[in-house]
Amino acid sequence: MNMHDVTFDEICCELNEELKAIREPNPGLKPTLAIIQVIEEILRLNEDSRVHGIFLHLPQSFLSKSVRNAIKPQKDVDGVSDLNVGRVVLGDQRDGFASPVAGAVLEMLARHGVYLFMAVLLGLEGPLKATLQFLLQNNGMMVQTHQWSSKPVSHFEVFVAAVVICQHVVRSSRRWIQEQQYQPWRLRPLKLQSLSPVPSDIEISRAQTPKPISQLAQEIGLLPEELEAYGNTKAKVHLSLLNRLQHQPNGKYVLVAGITPTPLGEGKSTVTIGLVQALSAHLKLNSFACLRQPSQGPTFGVKGGAAGGGYAQVIPMEEFNLHLTGDIHAITAANNLVAAAIDARILHEATQSDKALYSRLVPSVNGVRCFSPIQMARLQRLGINKSDPSDLTPEEVRAFVRLDLDPEKVTWQRVVDTNDRFLRKITVGQANTEKGHARQTQFDIAVASEIMAILALTDGLADMRARLGRMVVGSSRNGQSITADDLGVTGALAVLMKDAIKPTLMQTLEGTPVFVHAGPFANIAHGNSSVLADKLALKLVGEEGYVVTEAGFGADIGMEKFFNIKCRTSGLRPDVVVLVATVRALKMHGGGPNVTAGVPLPKEYINENLQLVADGCSNLKKQIQIAHLFGVPVVVALNVFKTDTQAEIDMVCCIAEASGASAAVQCHHWSRGGRGSVELAHAVKKVASQKNHFQFLYNLQDSIVEKIRTIAQKVYGADDIELSPEAQAKIDHYNQQGFGALPICMAKTHLSLSHMPEKKGVPTGFILPIRDIRASIGAGFIYPLVGTMSTMPGLPTRPCFYDIDLDPVTEEIKGLF
Amino acid sequence: MNMHDVTFDEICCELNEELKAIREPNPGLKPTLAIIQVIEEILRLNEDSRVHGIFLHLPQSFLSKSVRNAIKPQKDVDGVSDLNVGRVVLGDQRDGFASPVAGAVLEMLARHGVYLFMAVLLGLEGPLKATLQFLLQNNGMMVQTHQWSSKPVSHFEVFVAAVVICQHVVRSSRRWIQEQQYQPWRLRPLKLQSLSPVPSDIEISRAQTPKPISQLAQEIGLLPEELEAYGNTKAKVHLSLLNRLQHQPNGKYVLVAGITPTPLGEGKSTVTIGLVQALSAHLKLNSFACLRQPSQGPTFGVKGGAAGGGYAQVIPMEEFNLHLTGDIHAITAANNLVAAAIDARILHEATQSDKALYSRLVPSVNGVRCFSPIQMARLQRLGINKSDPSDLTPEEVRAFVRLDLDPEKVTWQRVVDTNDRFLRKITVGQANTEKGHARQTQFDIAVASEIMAILALTDGLADMRARLGRMVVGSSRNGQSITADDLGVTGALAVLMKDAIKPTLMQTLEGTPVFVHAGPFANIAHGNSSVLADKLALKLVGEEGYVVTEAGFGADIGMEKFFNIKCRTSGLRPDVVVLVATVRALKMHGGGPNVTAGVPLPKEYINENLQLVADGCSNLKKQIQIAHLFGVPVVVALNVFKTDTQAEIDMVCCIAEASGASAAVQCHHWSRGGRGSVELAHAVKKVASQKNHFQFLYNLQDSIVEKIRTIAQKVYGADDIELSPEAQAKIDHYNQQGFGALPICMAKTHLSLSHMPEKKGVPTGFILPIRDIRASIGAGFIYPLVGTMSTMPGLPTRPCFYDIDLDPVTEEIKGLF
Repeated sequence: MNMHDVTFDEICCELNEELKAIREPNPGLKPTLAIIQVIEEILRLNEDSRVHGIFLHLPQSFLSKSVRNAIKPQKDVDGVSDLNVGRVVLGDQRDGFASPVAGAVLEMLARHGVYLFMAVLLGLEGPLKATLQFLLQNNGMMVQTHQWSSKPVSHFEVFVAAVVICQHVVRSSRRWIQEQQYQPWRLRPLKLQSLSPVPSDIEISRAQTPKPISQLAQEIGLLPEELEAYGNTKAKVHLSLLNRLQHQPNGKYVLVAGITPTPLGEGKSTVTIGLVQALSAHLKLNSFACLRQPSQGPTFGVKGGAAGGGYAQVIPMEEFNLHLTGDIHAITAANNLVAAAIDARILHEATQSDKALYSRLVPSVNGVRCFSPIQMARLQRLGINKSDPSDLTPEEVRAFVRLDLDPEKVTWQRVVDTNDRFLRKITVGQANTEKGHARQTQFDIAVASEIMAILALTDGLADMRARLGRMVVGSSRNGQSITADDLGVTGALAVLMKDAIKPTLMQTLEGTPVFVHAGPFANIAHGNSSVLADKLALKLVGEEGYVVTEAGFGADIGMEKFFNIKCRTSGLRPDVVVLVATVRALKMHGGGPNVTAGVPLPKEYINENLQLVADGCSNLKKQIQIAHLFGVPVVVALNVFKTDTQAEIDMVCCIAEASGASAAVQCHHWSRGGRGSVELAHAVKKVASQKNHFQFLYNLQDSIVEKIRTIAQKVYGADDIELSPEAQAKIDHYNQQGFGALPICMAKTHLSLSHMPEKKGVPTGFILPIRDIRASIGAGFIYPLVGTMSTMPGLPTRPCFYDIDLDPVTEEIKGLF
Repeated sequence: MNMHDVTFDEICCELNEELKAIREPNPGLKPTLAIIQVIEEILRLNEDSRVHGIFLHLPQSFLSKSVRNAIKPQKDVDGVSDLNVGRVVLGDQRDGFASPVAGAVLEMLARHGVYLFMAVLLGLEGPLKATLQFLLQNNGMMVQTHQWSSKPVSHFEVFVAAVVICQHVVRSSRRWIQEQQYQPWRLRPLKLQSLSPVPSDIEISRAQTPKPISQLAQEIGLLPEELEAYGNTKAKVHLSLLNRLQHQPNGKYVLVAGITPTPLGEGKSTVTIGLVQALSAHLKLNSFACLRQPSQGPTFGVKGGAAGGGYAQVIPMEEFNLHLTGDIHAITAANNLVAAAIDARILHEATQSDKALYSRLVPSVNGVRCFSPIQMARLQRLGINKSDPSDLTPEEVRAFVRLDLDPEKVTWQRVVDTNDRFLRKITVGQANTEKGHARQTQFDIAVASEIMAILALTDGLADMRARLGRMVVGSSRNGQSITADDLGVTGALAVLMKDAIKPTLMQTLEGTPVFVHAGPFANIAHGNSSVLADKLALKLVGEEGYVVTEAGFGADIGMEKFFNIKCRTSGLRPDVVVLVATVRALKMHGGGPNVTAGVPLPKEYINENLQLVADGCSNLKKQIQIAHLFGVPVVVALNVFKTDTQAEIDMVCCIAEASGASAAVQCHHWSRGGRGSVELAHAVKKVASQKNHFQFLYNLQDSIVEKIRTIAQKVYGADDIELSPEAQAKIDHYNQQGFGALPICMAKTHLSLSHMPEKKGVPTGFILPIRDIRASIGAGFIYPLVGTMSTMPGLPTRPCFYDIDLDPVTEEIKGLF
C-alpha cells in the first residue's frame, strides 16, 4: 500500500494506538487542543452587553484589516478600526477612541514639557503608527517613519497606555449607562404633508416611506441585540429589556376609552395614534402607542383595516392588518393542538384498557420506564407520591391514565382566523377511523381563544407557561376540572408561543413608535392590548414620557376591564383617561335615528342639531362618572367629523367640562395627523401630571355574585342582576373548584350601557340578566354571559375581498381600507 | 387681543387672504415650497441599487458629521465619511474612496514635477483637509494649516477633481458589477467538532452558534435590500434577485431521491444537507441546499423534526420545525378564506332573490354602480360583454349572481396545520344562523392544500395570482367548474400569499446556505420544494456551483414527479440524481421482517446478513433504471448506520455500480457532518460535469389514460392499469372541461413500487387500480388515487409533545428531535 491509499480512518486508528500507549502510564492525561476562532469570538463579544471594551493583545502586524474591523467601533477601546482612526483624524474623539499608546506618548511628551521639531517613528505599523503620526503632526512636529525593528517601549509607556485603555473602557461604560437612563429621544419624525380631501387609508399609508425599523429602534434607545427584525418595517422586541431598564422609572400611563359607540365605531384607535403623533413629533415628548393586533378575519369581511385611519395610522397598514409577525397564527396553532389532544385522548381512552394506555403513556425506552416531568406533575395533582412506574397500584394507574373527560362537558373550542360562519356549530369525528365518537362542537374566531387572553395578561415566559398549563378544557365525568397540563401539552404550547410573547414594534405615519401586541376578543375576554407591551413602553419612554393604550368598546366595558382586570394583573396604575366622543354618537344617544353600517347616514347626523347633541351628552357624562369611580381624571377628546358644526363642537366641550372632565378638546388628527391633536396632547400632559387616587371597583375576595352586582349597578346603572339556574349552578361549581376569587369579565353588548343594544343614552330601571357563566382559568377571569355572544363572525354577500388585489409588478396592495 | 392669542388657524386665515390677493392678478401662480430632507434623501439613495455614488455639492462647513456619515461608505465617492478617511490614513484604498480634490492636488503636483518641502493649506476643513494633509505628509512634505479664508481653486483643479469623482463612480460601478458575477463565495464555514456518541439533534443544533443571517447573505452575494430578516437566523429573499442575476449562468442541479423506504425513512434530508456541507465547507464550492418546509402537525405527533439530523442539520432546528417565516400559516389563511367564501356564497344564494343578490354584489356607492375588476372577469367568462350594471338582462343577472354551486360537489376542503383526526369527516353549518344548510366535509393537513402545491410550482407573483384564480373549488349544478376567481377572492389570496412566495434563507450546521420553501404533500401533490428557491439558488451559486434539492418518498414517486411535473413547469434540467439507500431498507426488500416505527428492529437489521442485502438490491437497481429512463446519471449514496458491516457496505456499492450507477459511495454525514460526505461530493462533482440527455417520460398531449399507463408500466412495473367507473367518469369530465393536457401526479403508497405497501423489492405481474381521479387546476395537475389516501394524520396515545418543553429562563427548547 502506498501513501496515497492511507485513509483518514487509518490515520485515526494509528493515532489512537499511539494515544493508548501514552495514556497507559498516565491514565489522567487527556490531550486537549483549544482553537481560538478570533473573529467568531470578537463577534460574540460585540453582542455581549456586559462587555464594554475589546482589546486584542496581538502584535500590530497580526491585526489584519478584517480582524481590526470586526470589532464594533463603540467597543474598540484600542482605536484600531478604520472608523476610529478616521474619527481621530477628523478630530472627533467624542464618539470614537484613539489608540491609547499614541495618547500615552503625547501625554508623556506633555508631562515632560518636551517639544520636538522632528519625530522619528521606528518600527510602528498600522493604526498606532497612523494615529501617532497624525497626533504629533497636529501638535506641530515633523514626523518621519522607518520600518526598522522596534525598540521595546518603556515600562512607563506601557503603564500609561494601560491607564488610557482603562480610561477608554470607563468612557465606554459611561456611554452605555447614559444610554440606559432617561433622555429625550433623538427621534427623527417623518414629515406629513396632509392633502385635502383626505385620500384613502391605503393611499396615505403608501405615500409615506417608513423609517427602517432598526433606525426607529435605535432612536428610542433599544440595543441591536434586543431587536428581531421581521422585514424592514416591523420587529419583535426582547423581554430582556425589562431587566435592563428595571431601575428606570415608568412614564405616564394614558388610557383611551370611548363613550357608547354607534355600530360604526367612534375612532378610539385614530385618537390614540393622533395623540402619540402629537406628543412625539410635535411636543417632542417621548411617547408610545400600544395597540391590539386585529383579527385577520374581518379584514376580508366587512370591517377593513384597524390601523387607525386618515393621517393617524400605523404604517405600513397592510402589514398591520395581515399576518404581522405571526402571533395570531401561533395562537391558532397552540389552541388547535389542545383541541386535537382532547379528542384524540377521548378516543384512545375509549378504545384501550388501562394497561394498554399505561404501557403506551409510559413506554419502556431501551429497557427503562420513567415518567416525564409533565406526568410527574399530574401524579402530584392526583396525590400519588411515587416516581417509579412499576410502583403504582392498578387504581392509581387507572386514575393516572384516564382523564375520563366527559365529551358533553368539553369547553375548549377550535379556532380559525377567518370569518367562517359555517363553523359556528359542527359535528366532528364522523370518519370510520374515529369509531363512532362523533360529537358536536364549534370553531371560534382565533382572537377569542383563551390563549390570546393569556398573551395579553402575562408578564413573562414562566408566567405564560404556568397559565397555559392551568387552562381548563372541560370536566371529567365526576366533575373534576381537566387542564392542559393533564393533557401533557403545556410545554408544547409554550414552545409554540415563545416568539408571540415578544411585542411587535411598528411606527405611525409620523415615524413615532407603536407596539402592536395581543388582541383578545373584547367580548368574552377583556379586549385590551398586552400588559407586556405597556410595561416595555413605559420603561422606554422614561419618566417624562407617555404611553397611550386603548381599551376596546365603550368605557363601561373596555375601561372597566382595563382597570379591574388588566391593571390588577399588571400592577400598573393609569394617570389619565382620554374619553373619545363624536357628535354622531352623541346625537344617537340623544334620540337620533338608527345608525347602520353600509347604509347612508340619516340627515340628523349631517345637519346641525344641537338638541340631539345636548340630550346625548347624558351618555358622555355617565362614562366620565364611571372613570371617576376608579379615581382617574378624564380628558374628553371630541373626534371631529367634517359635518360637525362649531356650535355642536363647542357644546360638547362645554358640557363635558361641566360634567367633571378635567378638559375637553377637539381633535383633527384624521385630516391633519399629529398637528391636529396638539391641543389634546397639551391637555393630556397637564392632567396626567396631577395626582390621582386610583382604586379598584371591587375586591377579589367578594363573592362572584357580589362582584357581578357591583359592576352591574355602579357601572351599567342596573337596579340589580338576575341569575339563570345554569349561571347559579356554574357559580357553585367554580366556587367548589376554587375559582371564586377571580376577577369578573362581563360579556355584554357594547352598543348600550345596558344589556339591550337598542337602549341608548343612560338606560335605567333594568335588571341585568346573567344567562350563563364561563371561566378562563389560565387567563384568570370568570366571564358571565349577558345575552347571546357570537364568537364567529360571518362574511356578507359582498365581502371586502372583492376590492382587494395585489399588483404583481409593483407589489402594491389595492382595496384595503 | 394680544399676540399670544393669535392661533394657528388665524395665521392660516390671514395668509390665505394675502395669497388670494396675489393670485387674483396671477391665476396661474401656485406658491410652492420644496424642502430637501438631505438625510432622508441620502438614506433613500443608499438603498437604491441603481445609484453607485453619492456626491454632496455643499461647502465643507455644511457637511456636518451626521450628514457625512449618513452616506454608505461604499457609495461615498467623495471620501467624506469617517470610515473612508480612516481607510485612506491606513493606506487602504481598495475598499474605500479618498477625497477626489486631495487626489487631484497630488496628481497636479506629480504632473508638474513639483516637490514641496513645506505645504501650507489655507481655508480647508474636514475630510478634505485631513486627507490632503495626510497624503502630502506621506509624500514627505511638511504641512501647515491655517483657517484663513479660502483662495478659490483653479479651473484645472476643479476639472481634475471632477475626473477623479467620475473615476470613483466607475470604480464603484465596477465593484457592483463584480458582485453580480460568478465568484467563489467568501464563505466562512462554522467549525464542527463532532462528538461520539452523537448527541441528540436539538443538543447538536443548540451547541452551534449560527452566523447572523445577514452575514451569511453577504457572504453569498446577496445585497442588503434583497434580504428581509425574520429574527437573526432566518430571512426571506426577494424575487428581484432573479432579475438582477438574469445573465448569470445557472449552477449544476442535483436531485436527491431514494430507494423505496422503510416506514422509518432512509435519510434523504440528511444526505442533502451533508452533501452541501461537504461541497461548500470542505470542497470550497458554492452550493445551496433547497429543502421543503415541514408541516408543524407531525412535529407534535410522532415524527419529530425534519431539519436533517446528527451533524447534518439545518439550524436552529426549532425555527425550521416550528412557524419558520409563517408560510404555512399564510397558506392556511388563504385556503380557509376560500372555504368560508364557498359556504357563505351557497347560503346567500339560497336565501336571496336574484335582485337582492345583484344589488348587494354590485351596490350603489355614492349613487354610482359599477362592477369591480374581478366581477368584469367573471362576466367575460360568462360571455357577457357589458360593463354597465344596468344593462344586464334578468337572465344575465341570474347567470352573474348565481354560481349555483352544488353542495355535494364542493371539492375544496378546509385545512389546519395540526394532526387532528377528528376533522377527517365533519358536518358544518349546524347553527340556526345557517338555516339548515349543513353539509358534510373535512379538514386536511395544511400542506395538502392546493395553495401549497401552487407555491411550490409558481415562478412569480403574476403567475401565482393567475394560478390562485384558476383553482377549481367545485361544480355548479349543471356541471360547470367554479373557480376561486368566480368567488371574487383571487386578489385577497394573492395578498395573503405575498410574503410566502419569497424563499427563506437558513444555514446548515457548518454555516452553508439553505433555502427552505414550500412543502406540498408528497402524496396528493408532488412533494418537492419550490421552483423559485431552486431558481434563486442556481443563480446565487453561479456556473461552478451546485444546488442540491430533494424529492419526497421513493424515486418512483418523488423523482418521477420532480422530472415530469416540477422540471416541466420550471424549465430546469437536472444534472445528476443522488439515490439514497440504506442497508436497512435493502434488507427489508431482500425479505427481512417488517420494520415498524416505535418497535425495536429485528435482529436481521442489527447483525450482518449479506444475502438479504444482495436480494434487496433489486429495488435499488430498479430505481436506478427509473432515473435512466429520464436520461439522468445516478450516484448512489449509501447512508451508513453504525450497525452496517464493511462487507455489507462494499456489497451495496459494488452492486450499485454494476447496476448502472455512475458511482456508489458511503456517507457518514450523520456522525461527522460534511467531512463524512466528502467522497459523495467528489462523486457528484465528477458525474454532474458529464453531459446527459434529459427527457420527459410522456407528452402532455397524450390522453390522461395513456399518461397514467406510461407511469404505471415504465416506472412501477405494472402490467396495466384498471380504471374504476368513477375514475372513468372524472376523466370524461376533465377532458370536457379542457383539463386533459395536464401532467399526472400519482397518489400512491411510497412503501412499495406497486400499490400494495407490503410488496417489497420489485413487484411484478400486477394491475394498478385507479380508484378515483381528482384535479388541482391551479397547481396544474391531475391526480389519480391509487387506494385510499389519508390527508389528515392523527395523534398517537403518547404524542411527542409529552417531552417538549421550554425553559422559561434560558428560553431553551427541550424534547424536539
